Amino acid sequence: MAGNSFGEILKLSTFGESHGPAVGGILDGVPAGLTINADQIQWLLDQRKPGQSAVSSSRNESDKVEILSGIFQDKTLGTPIGFIIRNTDARPADYEHLQTAYRPSHADFAWDQKYGFRDFRGGGRASARETAARVAAGAIALQLLNHFGISVLSWVSKVGDVAMEPSATINSEAVFSNEIRCPHPASAASMRNLILKLKAEGNTIGGMVSTRVTGLNAGIGEPVFDKLHASLGHAMLSINAVKGFEYGSGFGSVKMTGTEHNDTFVNSGGSITTRTNHSGGIQGGISNGNEINFNVAFKPVATVLQPQETVNAAGEAAVLEGKGRHDPCVVPRAVPIVMAMTALTVADQLLRNRSARL
Amino acid sequence: MAGNSFGEILKLSTFGESHGPAVGGILDGVPAGLTINADQIQWLLDQRKPGQSAVSSSRNESDKVEILSGIFQDKTLGTPIGFIIRNTDARPADYEHLQTAYRPSHADFAWDQKYGFRDFRGGGRASARETAARVAAGAIALQLLNHFGISVLSWVSKVGDVAMEPSATINSEAVFSNEIRCPHPASAASMRNLILKLKAEGNTIGGMVSTRVTGLNAGIGEPVFDKLHASLGHAMLSINAVKGFEYGSGFGSVKMTGTEHNDTFVNSGGSITTRTNHSGGIQGGISNGNEINFNVAFKPVATVLQPQETVNAAGEAAVLEGKGRHDPCVVPRAVPIVMAMTALTVADQLLRNRSARL
Amino acid sequence: MAGNSFGEILKLSTFGESHGPAVGGILDGVPAGLTINADQIQWLLDQRKPGQSAVSSSRNESDKVEILSGIFQDKTLGTPIGFIIRNTDARPADYEHLQTAYRPSHADFAWDQKYGFRDFRGGGRASARETAARVAAGAIALQLLNHFGISVLSWVSKVGDVAMEPSATINSEAVFSNEIRCPHPASAASMRNLILKLKAEGNTIGGMVSTRVTGLNAGIGEPVFDKLHASLGHAMLSINAVKGFEYGSGFGSVKMTGTEHNDTFVNSGGSITTRTNHSGGIQGGISNGNEINFNVAFKPVATVLQPQETVNAAGEAAVLEGKGRHDPCVVPRAVPIVMAMTALTVADQLLRNRSARL
Amino acid sequence: MAGNSFGEILKLSTFGESHGPAVGGILDGVPAGLTINADQIQWLLDQRKPGQSAVSSSRNESDKVEILSGIFQDKTLGTPIGFIIRNTDARPADYEHLQTAYRPSHADFAWDQKYGFRDFRGGGRASARETAARVAAGAIALQLLNHFGISVLSWVSKVGDVAMEPSATINSEAVFSNEIRCPHPASAASMRNLILKLKAEGNTIGGMVSTRVTGLNAGIGEPVFDKLHASLGHAMLSINAVKGFEYGSGFGSVKMTGTEHNDTFVNSGGSITTRTNHSGGIQGGISNGNEINFNVAFKPVATVLQPQETVNAAGEAAVLEGKGRHDPCVVPRAVPIVMAMTALTVADQLLRNRSARL
Repeated sequence: MAGNSFGEILKLSTFGESHGPAVGGILDGVPAGLTINADQIQWLLDQRKPGQSAVSSSRNESDKVEILSGIFQDKTLGTPIGFIIRNTDARPADYEHLQTAYRPSHADFAWDQKYGFRDFRGGGRASARETAARVAAGAIALQLLNHFGISVLSWVSKVGDVAMEPSATINSEAVFSNEIRCPHPASAASMRNLILKLKAEGNTIGGMVSTRVTGLNAGIGEPVFDKLHASLGHAMLSINAVKGFEYGSGFGSVKMTGTEHNDTFVNSGGSITTRTNHSGGIQGGISNGNEINFNVAFKPVATVLQPQETVNAAGEAAVLEGKGRHDPCVVPRAVPIVMAMTALTVADQLLRNRSARL
Repeated sequence: MAGNSFGEILKLSTFGESHGPAVGGILDGVPAGLTINADQIQWLLDQRKPGQSAVSSSRNESDKVEILSGIFQDKTLGTPIGFIIRNTDARPADYEHLQTAYRPSHADFAWDQKYGFRDFRGGGRASARETAARVAAGAIALQLLNHFGISVLSWVSKVGDVAMEPSATINSEAVFSNEIRCPHPASAASMRNLILKLKAEGNTIGGMVSTRVTGLNAGIGEPVFDKLHASLGHAMLSINAVKGFEYGSGFGSVKMTGTEHNDTFVNSGGSITTRTNHSGGIQGGISNGNEINFNVAFKPVATVLQPQETVNAAGEAAVLEGKGRHDPCVVPRAVPIVMAMTALTVADQLLRNRSARL
Repeated sequence: MAGNSFGEILKLSTFGESHGPAVGGILDGVPAGLTINADQIQWLLDQRKPGQSAVSSSRNESDKVEILSGIFQDKTLGTPIGFIIRNTDARPADYEHLQTAYRPSHADFAWDQKYGFRDFRGGGRASARETAARVAAGAIALQLLNHFGISVLSWVSKVGDVAMEPSATINSEAVFSNEIRCPHPASAASMRNLILKLKAEGNTIGGMVSTRVTGLNAGIGEPVFDKLHASLGHAMLSINAVKGFEYGSGFGSVKMTGTEHNDTFVNSGGSITTRTNHSGGIQGGISNGNEINFNVAFKPVATVLQPQETVNAAGEAAVLEGKGRHDPCVVPRAVPIVMAMTALTVADQLLRNRSARL
Repeated sequence: MAGNSFGEILKLSTFGESHGPAVGGILDGVPAGLTINADQIQWLLDQRKPGQSAVSSSRNESDKVEILSGIFQDKTLGTPIGFIIRNTDARPADYEHLQTAYRPSHADFAWDQKYGFRDFRGGGRASARETAARVAAGAIALQLLNHFGISVLSWVSKVGDVAMEPSATINSEAVFSNEIRCPHPASAASMRNLILKLKAEGNTIGGMVSTRVTGLNAGIGEPVFDKLHASLGHAMLSINAVKGFEYGSGFGSVKMTGTEHNDTFVNSGGSITTRTNHSGGIQGGISNGNEINFNVAFKPVATVLQPQETVNAAGEAAVLEGKGRHDPCVVPRAVPIVMAMTALTVADQLLRNRSARL
């Protein structure tokens, strides 16, 4: 009820504040017998961790995950997988000034209104540090999907007004070959320049992450309230700084007519598929066997390194000096988070579908 | 697990196929003691029902709701509210040709892949007829919100490339004064013309519904996986034909810098508010006391009254003649559905918040 | 959250007050493709309905179930099965005196304390009339179990101090051949005499219902919080008037030593089973392939046809005259309810198990 | 779905195998602002831990809990409380012979049937070691209850055929003054003698734990499927080795008549209470303001230090030599587990009740 769990059969529950001893979680519902590659878990965590490059926060976390249960002799037991990631480079002193002044467009004020009490150090649980636990769990979900021949890939498709060239060849190697996580090298370079320019000004910039899921069989998704895209949208909108979600034709569909938009069914070598994919691989909330694709909009990071006007808890005017170690643009580090949440969502729906038929 | 329920404390479960005996539901978790106005429930249902105007389907349903439990002497008992809406103008014969040919961009094919068996009459449970149950329940949730001084209003803000004039005065009377559900009369007229033009061509068009929630106190929303906007997004994406959701600055935030986007806190007559509202009233997933606002994108209706190529279940080529009684544009009738799902979401989060503090 | 739903994948939600228009429910999660025999549903309802015999209430309800969705051409669609049972012989006037005086050992007082408002007619939702919806749904769950070769049978094993002869041959025909639902005819006759004697005195008596589940494969049950017997216990204790639950050796195990109690594993014709079954077919919360068996204790019905002292809502002394139409002993009519709840529980755990392995 | 979580608003999720690195859990839903006394958590854990006395296992675990989140400056944040307890005295080598031979009345066989793969070391997750996480969380729930003036106390009321003297004065000091956890010293001494006699024979014995909850206001419990006693029964039956649950008059009610059993309402100094308490403080599934009381039956520990016949996974006859470090009687160490599960259940129902009324 408190909203710290995600999923129905494959369920992730997370805990942890940004500057407490650790973040971590329990991934419950992984079927028994899956071989787990621990290096792949750490690899995905490494793509999210801060301190990787000039375009990310300089907080220096090793983000080493310790798995405490649920895996025995490298295979899943069917029991919950408990894991923790210690916070090692916490600097709570950086945040003492935040006890009183509310950071604009941060959760500080709303959090105080809700709980009447708050861990003010680095945003506490409102910090994106919580997503480290999602990435660790998502990396396991990815291995579960891979076992069934399903792949998930996300990439940065826009930073500010720099959009990725549509001609880009999109694969995992290309995405992770650069620190922007944009598979088109020239686009990545332009995005990087824009981010560094804004960073130099103490400013930040928004961006967009795109995702595709391939290899998913038709028939996955619960057709009423938990449509596949509704679950994906829920997952994406739960990530810090996300402002919008669209799949397939998305907001562009508003201007389209039915005859333009409809995906004609065709027989392609004996199997039924569609000529176009405005549906984004989902019809009536259920996968139709095509590639799933969707976009996620991220706002600019709220922490800017410029003085900002605000008020404190007493309502008195205050000026915030930008401090702390923050990203000038969130999307490069968001890529593994989006992949992780996608994998958790799709894997959960895959397991839910096991009861669809007799 | 099968995804026919929505909400945690205030939980709606629905049932019903389009051409079966009835649709209906159970709304559980309404606190005891709320006075219920049955006319207001019927009024919202009437805004959704087909056969209202030239821009909607001619299926003629009275959509009278029968409440079977949970309300006694016009007050809620705290027990589940069971209700049904009979299907009276079902014409299953209209759909017999659909047993074999898959309608483009409908759920037929994906549904067959999932269940291996399907009620082909009018889309069965995939039909938007299911949303009648959501509207009945949402009308009760709206009364619960009203009791706490919270209002919800949705309207049509775009049809195809016709956007509502931004100068419009938005209130319930203006929205429901015309069949388009757009509060700006001139914009509504343009939208109507566009819809009727496409209808005459046997075609359909997409659109957008906008929503605002006013009077919601700060502190509502669960800050990690069930952020207020994540719950709203889930709710909206579960509505038939929805392709995208954005709140506050939405997809526009991608191009913005942090200094442009940040909402400065100010003291307004003793209470803390913000100078701008790019946050859409939600920060860190929790309401901040401002107006909540969001947009929902709807694709064009998939049923067009033109012949369409497709295949049948055996993968053989077939031609579909457009039949049945369908809307040329879904957004006017979507307005009460969006309001209903918004009310259910916000009311659930309001009740969930009762355990936030000691 | 309000506790009107039972089950995780196979989920029953019920609604309805005793003297409102109807009781009913939604059974969600039945896999698609199950052939449903409507007569079998009605048959189980008929075993529960009042007015059957001298040992049950004279309230005359036909208890005809109307199925509104989820079944098409006699097969389940995989969509929720909505159903209602009209209340036809409601006599609310019988209960007007209960607006003020609290019936001893009924829910009236506790309910007022909880909700501050109550449907006083016949116990409202606290009435065992709600269990009609459980029986309708349970009859579907029984058919699902039967499809997998699993049978459930319950019977009356004790009324007051009259225990069923242990030599009884227990099968469905024997159980339902008499109105006591005890498969041993001589024991049934003694129980009947005891019930009628107490009825003549305006009094009531407790009893016990025993259950066995046969044909359930090993491996069913979730081993920590949702052990198979914990789910069964929850189900049974949710039935009106139940005071205790035990499985296998039950309370008798308190006096036993480990060497007496342990069930030795043996190889019986190539399959592993146990020599004794003190475990009641469940070890570590998981079925082991043996017969599941358990007992449920029911208290005497609280409504006696004798004057009783009590107080009213103002705390003033009052005398209650016994009125209404009630059973002198609840266990005969409880047999189908216990069977229904058992079937719902086991079927749910069977579906939950589908995700145990890769 | 996998059943590793308990509770709805106050929700405990646990993880951990007996001989893995750690057991632990996440307690979600504790309202913000509760002052936590860490010593009280450790104290309850110390009552459960092995190695305390001649009547318990000699496994030597310090059972020190490390809290990783959710508490800041000794107060709850309203965020999930993550915690771990390291396994320090694991001796997996003791269990290697169990890879092949199934221990009678243990979960080994059923577990293999379910998952096809098992951590055979000390029972893995089937071990009662998992309950350490329940006790840590339950100790927090107890503090939450105490804040509202509610107390929970459990004690050993029977070992084999030695019942506690009914004249005993029952309070926490008396219960925890001896290693049997029986508040009547002479009864405790008899129980101890019986346990030590059986231990000397390499045998074990069953027992019973009784519980009372005092200070709980009327109106708590959800009246249909989640009746207060149904939730308590579920909680108790989820504890290792439990075979039965009864509340109030329990199985004794089977022999009683309505006039004997009914609890007459009386006005006691201005407040409504009952003359007797056969209801065990619960009517219609809702607390009535009286003391809640119930009994839990525990079977004898299955590990005996005598050779036992069994079969291995291939179905071949085998002889098990009793090994490992086990309790001769489980009830003394079960007392804090029963208290913990009681506290978690009651606290959850207390929070659930916050939405009962407007």
